[in-house]
Amino acid sequence: MENYNISTSEVIEVLGTIAFAISGTFNAMQRKLDPFGVLIIAFVTAIGGGTVRDLLIGDTPVAWMRDMQTCLIVLFTALGTMFFKTHVQKLKITLFLFDSLGLGLFTMVGILKGMAFGLNPGICIALGTITGCFGGIIRDTLLNTIPLVFRREIYATACILGGLLYYLLIEINVESVVAKLAVVAFIFVLRIVAVKFKLSLPKFDY
Amino acid sequence: MENYNISTSEVIEVLGTIAFAISGTFNAMQRKLDPFGVLIIAFVTAIGGGTVRDLLIGDTPVAWMRDMQTCLIVLFTALGTMFFKTHVQKLKITLFLFDSLGLGLFTMVGILKGMAFGLNPGICIALGTITGCFGGIIRDTLLNTIPLVFRREIYATACILGGLLYYLLIEINVESVVAKLAVVAFIFVLRIVAVKFKLSLPKFDY
Amino acid sequence: MENYNISTSEVIEVLGTIAFAISGTFNAMQRKLDPFGVLIIAFVTAIGGGTVRDLLIGDTPVAWMRDMQTCLIVLFTALGTMFFKTHVQKLKITLFLFDSLGLGLFTMVGILKGMAFGLNPGICIALGTITGCFGGIIRDTLLNTIPLVFRREIYATACILGGLLYYLLIEINVESVVAKLAVVAFIFVLRIVAVKFKLSLPKFDY
Repeated sequence: MENYNISTSEVIEVLGTIAFAISGTFNAMQRKLDPFGVLIIAFVTAIGGGTVRDLLIGDTPVAWMRDMQTCLIVLFTALGTMFFKTHVQKLKITLFLFDSLGLGLFTMVGILKGMAFGLNPGICIALGTITGCFGGIIRDTLLNTIPLVFRREIYATACILGGLLYYLLIEINVESVVAKLAVVAFIFVLRIVAVKFKLSLPKFDY
Repeated sequence: MENYNISTSEVIEVLGTIAFAISGTFNAMQRKLDPFGVLIIAFVTAIGGGTVRDLLIGDTPVAWMRDMQTCLIVLFTALGTMFFKTHVQKLKITLFLFDSLGLGLFTMVGILKGMAFGLNPGICIALGTITGCFGGIIRDTLLNTIPLVFRREIYATACILGGLLYYLLIEINVESVVAKLAVVAFIFVLRIVAVKFKLSLPKFDY
Repeated sequence: MENYNISTSEVIEVLGTIAFAISGTFNAMQRKLDPFGVLIIAFVTAIGGGTVRDLLIGDTPVAWMRDMQTCLIVLFTALGTMFFKTHVQKLKITLFLFDSLGLGLFTMVGILKGMAFGLNPGICIALGTITGCFGGIIRDTLLNTIPLVFRREIYATACILGGLLYYLLIEINVESVVAKLAVVAFIFVLRIVAVKFKLSLPKFDY
């Protein structure tokens, strides 16, 4: 973590981890898994994207294994969600907002990590998208459904567009922190707009 | 393998590999896969946990690629199980015992490997649990079912409790070999008790 | 890529990538995924095998992340297939031929990479088989079906037989390039014969 600058966004990354852990917990509880299964799914949702990213670039041990912080955040988030589920379910909109915020942040973190490893811009954007989306993909695969990312309103597309925006902004010399926050905000808002107005890419019919 | 002490448990690890290979073979035959598919599933079940463990900590090439021993054990076990299936099926209880023994051993091996890599105790326990459980998780995912580990009687929970026991034992200065065998025995017995008395964690209902 | 000789087969490897990208695109369109989902599936099919291979041997960042070539090939192939689908669908036999050619080539590339890493022959054949088959396995798992490789006419078996042939040929001092082309041709022809005459390994019945 120390060799690329995420200090300004670390707080929001933690929020993203929390949001994804909550989303995973709900998914698993709806499938009536036992509490351990719920914890596994919460964990996979929250750390899956970063794990795939670290494996692909060879930055091992993967991030969540280096200290207990991530594990403890997911553990307490999932336990809290299980105990207070009725209360939290009413916060559905809040959850969606956190999920979208997490998507934006994780995408940004992935792009920065790719850049720190000297990868090509196109690859960095792919890495950001992977960081944002793969937690959900692994979760859905384990739960035996076609990953929602393949069906849902603009989701991964938002990550890609956000990544393109980031390179555009730094190309025109926008300050680094501003560019990062703008990308997070862009992905966040695009997701909200897409869901609110049911925007989606066209599907194929035969 | 040579940089952490598993010499005392290597024989039992081989037994664990055999047990998981047999369990994978039966699973695949019940799904009427062709013999190659059966071999793949037997292989995945027996080496999946260790592979995920080695990938996460970056110990590559992963263990089974370093020599032919593991591959040959799985190959001959799976072929033997396919040819003598009627006979082996009557050994269902023996299989279950081997599976539980393998679970205990693989969990212990994973914990020791994590310690050899200087990881945090909590992470080592997670790594042990991954080593014990992920073979079955990958097998079930490939076979298109929700992994049994998410539904079954106390399974991964046994690995976690066994891991906690190990740190407790070395904390109170129990001799290393004794502590390891105690953990393997604990997980082994806990699985048997859980299945015999149908112990499980409560599920969620809505 | 530069530390093992694939210069003679690089052109055909690109063709294999194209063929797998096309096959993935068709699979995803038949499942009515949105265009982004189609791109993901095309990408996973074309690079999945090589990615798993590179992860297992620890050759990271994995091959497709080192430059944009592979990504661009997959992108343009998938977009082209989406736009000209009616035309390409009539080329079904051509696709099958490319898929089989890709299988042969990717298997050969995987074997050579394993040899360059000093791995045991049996492991190299496994690595070649993984390189050839895992793109399809990951694709089918994401699309929530039992991977076709577990059900279909001789598929991975062709990779293994091709790998054995390669070691036989270099054992009797056949020139390297000739041996490689012979293996690719062998796998290619075996697949065609297997599909034409519906050859398959026997399944298990109870």
